Amino acid sequence: MLVVEEGDTVEIVLKNADSVTHGLSIHAANTQTSKFLGNVQPGEERVFRFTADFPGVFMYHCAPGGHGIMAHTMGGQHGMIVVEPKKKYRLEAELKRPPDLKLYIVQSEWYASGRDFFDGKATYVVFNGYNFRYVNEPIPVRPGDYVRIYFLNAGPSLTSTFHVVGGVWEYIYYQGNPDNLMKGSQTVLAGPSDSWVIEWRVPPVEGDYTLVTHVFNTAIKGAVGILRAKKDAPRIGEVRAEGPKALASVPADAKRVLDPYGLGTPDHEHTVRVPLDPTLVQPVAVGSKALEPLPVRVQMVGNSFYPKILEIPVGTTVEFVNEDVFDLLDGERTGRHDAVVIDVKGPEPFVTPKLGHGERYRITFTKPGEYVYICSIHPYMKGVIRVYAPVDQEAGGPEPEHHH
Amino acid sequence: MLVVEEGDTVEIVLKNADSVTHGLSIHAANTQTSKFLGNVQPGEERVFRFTADFPGVFMYHCAPGGHGIMAHTMGGQHGMIVVEPKKKYRLEAELKRPPDLKLYIVQSEWYASGRDFFDGKATYVVFNGYNFRYVNEPIPVRPGDYVRIYFLNAGPSLTSTFHVVGGVWEYIYYQGNPDNLMKGSQTVLAGPSDSWVIEWRVPPVEGDYTLVTHVFNTAIKGAVGILRAKKDAPRIGEVRAEGPKALASVPADAKRVLDPYGLGTPDHEHTVRVPLDPTLVQPVAVGSKALEPLPVRVQMVGNSFYPKILEIPVGTTVEFVNEDVFDLLDGERTGRHDAVVIDVKGPEPFVTPKLGHGERYRITFTKPGEYVYICSIHPYMKGVIRVYAPVDQEAGGPEPEHHH
Amino acid sequence: MLVVEEGDTVEIVLKNADSVTHGLSIHAANTQTSKFLGNVQPGEERVFRFTADFPGVFMYHCAPGGHGIMAHTMGGQHGMIVVEPKKKYRLEAELKRPPDLKLYIVQSEWYASGRDFFDGKATYVVFNGYNFRYVNEPIPVRPGDYVRIYFLNAGPSLTSTFHVVGGVWEYIYYQGNPDNLMKGSQTVLAGPSDSWVIEWRVPPVEGDYTLVTHVFNTAIKGAVGILRAKKDAPRIGEVRAEGPKALASVPADAKRVLDPYGLGTPDHEHTVRVPLDPTLVQPVAVGSKALEPLPVRVQMVGNSFYPKILEIPVGTTVEFVNEDVFDLLDGERTGRHDAVVIDVKGPEPFVTPKLGHGERYRITFTKPGEYVYICSIHPYMKGVIRVYAPVDQEAGGPEPEHHH
Ligand SMILES: [Cu+2]
Ligand SMILES: [Cu+2]
Ligand SMILES: [Cu+2]
Repeated sequence: MLVVEEGDTVEIVLKNADSVTHGLSIHAANTQTSKFLGNVQPGEERVFRFTADFPGVFMYHCAPGGHGIMAHTMGGQHGMIVVEPKKKYRLEAELKRPPDLKLYIVQSEWYASGRDFFDGKATYVVFNGYNFRYVNEPIPVRPGDYVRIYFLNAGPSLTSTFHVVGGVWEYIYYQGNPDNLMKGSQTVLAGPSDSWVIEWRVPPVEGDYTLVTHVFNTAIKGAVGILRAKKDAPRIGEVRAEGPKALASVPADAKRVLDPYGLGTPDHEHTVRVPLDPTLVQPVAVGSKALEPLPVRVQMVGNSFYPKILEIPVGTTVEFVNEDVFDLLDGERTGRHDAVVIDVKGPEPFVTPKLGHGERYRITFTKPGEYVYICSIHPYMKGVIRVYAPVDQEAGGPEPEHHH
Repeated sequence: MLVVEEGDTVEIVLKNADSVTHGLSIHAANTQTSKFLGNVQPGEERVFRFTADFPGVFMYHCAPGGHGIMAHTMGGQHGMIVVEPKKKYRLEAELKRPPDLKLYIVQSEWYASGRDFFDGKATYVVFNGYNFRYVNEPIPVRPGDYVRIYFLNAGPSLTSTFHVVGGVWEYIYYQGNPDNLMKGSQTVLAGPSDSWVIEWRVPPVEGDYTLVTHVFNTAIKGAVGILRAKKDAPRIGEVRAEGPKALASVPADAKRVLDPYGLGTPDHEHTVRVPLDPTLVQPVAVGSKALEPLPVRVQMVGNSFYPKILEIPVGTTVEFVNEDVFDLLDGERTGRHDAVVIDVKGPEPFVTPKLGHGERYRITFTKPGEYVYICSIHPYMKGVIRVYAPVDQEAGGPEPEHHH
Repeated sequence: MLVVEEGDTVEIVLKNADSVTHGLSIHAANTQTSKFLGNVQPGEERVFRFTADFPGVFMYHCAPGGHGIMAHTMGGQHGMIVVEPKKKYRLEAELKRPPDLKLYIVQSEWYASGRDFFDGKATYVVFNGYNFRYVNEPIPVRPGDYVRIYFLNAGPSLTSTFHVVGGVWEYIYYQGNPDNLMKGSQTVLAGPSDSWVIEWRVPPVEGDYTLVTHVFNTAIKGAVGILRAKKDAPRIGEVRAEGPKALASVPADAKRVLDPYGLGTPDHEHTVRVPLDPTLVQPVAVGSKALEPLPVRVQMVGNSFYPKILEIPVGTTVEFVNEDVFDLLDGERTGRHDAVVIDVKGPEPFVTPKLGHGERYRITFTKPGEYVYICSIHPYMKGVIRVYAPVDQEAGGPEPEHHH
C-alpha cells in the first residue's frame, strides 16, 4: 500500500526477485506504463516516475503483458495506491479536523484454480487478504469517531456493495475524487478496480458495527469485518491495507491450500477419476457406425490445468485443449500452453506441441503409472495423470510402496 | 414494506414466532443494531427505536448474526423501508404535484440450494416476490402519468440494471437521496442492497411498457413486469412491494418447490446416483501402488447439504466436508455443521462431529437402506443418503413396500 | 451503429429478412415500442418514428416480445445508437475543439449454449464483435490526442469496468448525458445496457495504451484492445462500433464455432455420454424397495437443448424438462418448447408435447440409432441423441458406414 499527495512526483523502483517475468500497472499514473513497467525479466530492476495528477484511491497490479496481466492478478499480485487530494473532503471541511481513523480496505478474491477463476467461483473473498480478518481482530473505534474509509475492490472479477451494519454512509466519493460526492448511502457499488472514499461518523452507541459486502454469496466466503465501538477504545489512527505475508512454508495443519496454478491441497476437490468406460471395452455402435471413443479432456485454462489430478484406466485417450484465449505474444505474456512430463521417475515421458486457443492434442496412455507434468512456458502450471490398471491377482496384489 | 418520513422516530417491534433464532438489520437506521436486534431467540420480543435521519430507499433483512445473516437473507427474509425526504424530488418540484403512481419494486433471487447460492445460480429472479408477477397482472397507468419508482435490489447476490422498454428514465437518484440526482438514463445499475428513486412520465402513447432488469440472464428467470398504459386505466395510486404470503401447504400441482435448506421438489435435479465404481470391486493400481478409494463427497454449504439426495452402492465411503467459511459463534449464527440421522426407521444411526470450515469426516456405509439426516445446529438442513445393494435373485427380487 | 442529434426526428425502417419472428427495442426512444416494433413476422416491414429527446449512448436490440427478447439478444442481435447532445461535453468546451478521435466501443458476450447463458459462462467477451479485435489491429492515436469514447456494455449479462492501462479517465458521463459528469476515474462501471461517455487526452508518451474491462475473468476471454500512440500516427477520426459481418459459411479451419441454439463445433464440449448404468442391468434395491431408475435429463434452456449431443445405451429413459421460465405468449415470444425428430433417416420418430416451465416428459429409447430433433416452436433449436448398443460379434462388428 502506498499513500502519496496530489501533485507529488512518485518514483517507483520495481525489482523482479522471482524466477518468472512480472510487471506493474499503476492506475494512478496517467502516462505510458506498458513500455516502462511491462515484461520485467527475473532479476531485472526498473525505475519509473510519474506525477500524481488525479486524487483518489487506485489499484496497482502485476502486468507482465497480455494474458499474463489477468493471470498474475488472479494469483493475488495487487495493491492500493492512494493520492490524497489537495481539496478537503467535505466532512473534514465541515468538522474542521482530520479523521480519527483512516481505514484502508482492499477487497479481493482467492481462487483454487484457473477454471474457477474463469467461472467466477471464488473460494474466498476477503478484506485485506484474510478471511474474516477483522472479525478475528476487530478494529477499535469510539462512538462519535470520524472515520474515513478508502475502499478498493481489487477483484479480479466480482462486484461488491460495501456496507456497514448499523450505519448509513454520510458522504461517498466515486473513485475517491472529492468532486464526485454523493450522500446518505447504505452501500457503495464497486466493480473490479472501482474505488470509493467514504466518510462516516460512528453513531453514539457502543457495540459492533459490521463491515460487509452486501453481495451475500461473497460475504459468506469471508468479506466481513467488525468495527468495535467502545468509549475507551485505543486510538489507532489508521488500518493499512496490507495483505498476508507470504509463508515460508505451509502449516502442517492447514485445512485447505489454494494454489490456483498448481495442485493445492490434495483433498480430492480437483481430482477426477474416470471409471473404465464399458463402451470402450465391449464394442458398441450407433446403428451401423461404431461409437467413437470420447476422449477425456484436460483443459489449459487461466494458467492452470483442469482437472489438476486425473485418474484414468490404462488405454484411455486424453485430449489436452487450450481454453485460454489470448495466444499472442510469448513467455509469461501469452496464453499459449503445452504439457510436458517432468518426473523422470514416471513410466515414460510425453510432450504436447505448444497449443494456441482452441487447439487440441491427444495422447493415449498405455503404460500404467503416475505422470507429473507442467507447462514449459509457465512452469508453475502443474498437473498429474494417474493411469491405473487391474492388479495381476496371481502376483499377489500391488507391491508394498517403495517411494512416497 | 415500511414507509416513514425523514426525521421520524421509528419504533420497531420484532417478535420471533419461529423455532429458530432470527434478528433484524435495518439499513435506514444509522445506529447500532447488532446489539439490539441480533440473535433474537424463538419466542423473544425486542423493541428498537431509531431516527430516520437519511432519506431514501433502504433494505432490511434477517440478521441473527455471523453466518446466519447471509444464510437467512438467501432464504428470502428481506424487505424495503422507504424514508420519504423533506426535500422534494425534482420532477415533483417542477410539476408542482405528487406522482400519479408510486411504484415500489424489490428485485430478489430465489435459490434451490446453498450450493446454487454460493455459485450465483438463481433459479428465479423476481420483482416483488413472484416470477413475472406484473406480466400476469399488468400495472395500470395512463399515458402522461407521472410515475415515481422506488427500486431496491435486495439480492442477495446479483446485480441489476433496471430498465423500461419504451422509455428513458427522466431523473434518477442513487439510493433515493434527492441530492444524488442524475438525468436521462436508460438503466439504473444496482448491486445487492443498492437502491434508486426513478422519476418518469409515461409517454403519450397507449401500450405495454415492460419493466425489466437488463441483466438478461436474470430477466429470463422472471424479473419482468408490465406497465399497461390506457387512457381510461384505473388510478391505483401505489403498488406496494409486498412479497408472497407464506403458503399453508404446497399445492399438489406445483411443478417445482424450492427449499434451499431442505429437499425441495423430489425432481432429481439435486439427486446424485453413484454407480458401482469398478475400481472398488476389482483391485487396481497405479504402478506399484493400489489406487486410493475416492470418497463420495457431501458438502455442507450455505446451510444446506449438497447433493441433497445421494444414492450409493453399499460399501461406499462418504466424506462430509464443510464448505461454509464462517465457523465462529454458535447456533444460527455459525457456519459450523454436523450430520445426524433422524429417521429411527432407517437401517442404523450415524453422526458426524461438528465440523468447522474445511473440516472433513468420513463414514463407510455398509448397511443398505435410506438414511435421512439433518444438521443438529440448523435442524432445517436436511439430506438423504440411499444405500443400494444387488437384489438377492433367489429371494425373488425386492419385497413389496411396507412403509412409505 | 447509429448516430443522431438531440432533438432529431428519427425514422427507423425495420425489415425482417429472416425466417423467424424478430423485433426491435431502441433505448433512445422515450415512447411505446413494443406495439410498433414487436413481433415482426418474416418478410414484414415496419416504419417507426421517434424524437431523440435524451442525449447519450443507448443500446438497441432484437425484441420479438416476451422470452424472445432475452433469447435473441443473447444470440448477438444488438447495437449502439448515439444521441449527440446540444450541450457540449466539458473537455470540448474547455479545449474549444472537437475530439481528435471518436471511439465507439460496444462490449458484449458470446455464449456456446443457452445453459452457459443462464449460468453467466461466456465463452468470449469482446469489444465490437471480435476477440482481441484491437489487439490484432491497434487503433492509431498521437500523444496528446483528445479522445472521446462512447462506451456501451450490451451484455447481455455481465458487468464491465472499462479501463485504460496507462491512463486515468479525465471526465466521465453516466449514460453519456453531459449533465452526469464525474472526474478522474480509473474505471467506469457498467452493467448490461449501461453506457458512459469518457473524455481523455492521450498522455505525451508514445507506446501502447491498453483498453480493457477490469473484470478480469471476462478480459481474459477477449475484451482487450490497444490504442497505439505514435507521433506520426494517421488521423482516422473515428472507430465505429460495427460488429462482425455474418459469414456466408464457416471457415474449414475454424477451431471453435459457437451456435448457442444449435450444435456448434462438434468438439465434444457439449456431448455427454452415459455409460451403461449397472444398476439398470442388475436389479438393485434400497432396503426392501427397488431403486427407481434415474432418467437422463435433457434441458430446454435459453432456446437450446442441453446437452446438445447425448449418447445413451439402448433402453435408457430420457426426461425432457423445460427450464425456460417465461411460458406465456406464443411463437418466438414464448419459452415453451417441445422436441420433435426431423431426420427421416433416423430409426423412428418421436415427439414430446409442448412443455411449459418446469414441465417434463419421458421417452424410453429402445431402438439404436441417431435421432436428430428440433423444437417445432423455435426450429433453430437442435439436438442429437445417439442410442448405442452392443455390437453383434457374430455378425462381425459394425457394418461399413452407408451414409454420412
Ligand atoms: Cu507477475
Ligand atoms: Cu432468520
Ligand atoms: Cu430476433
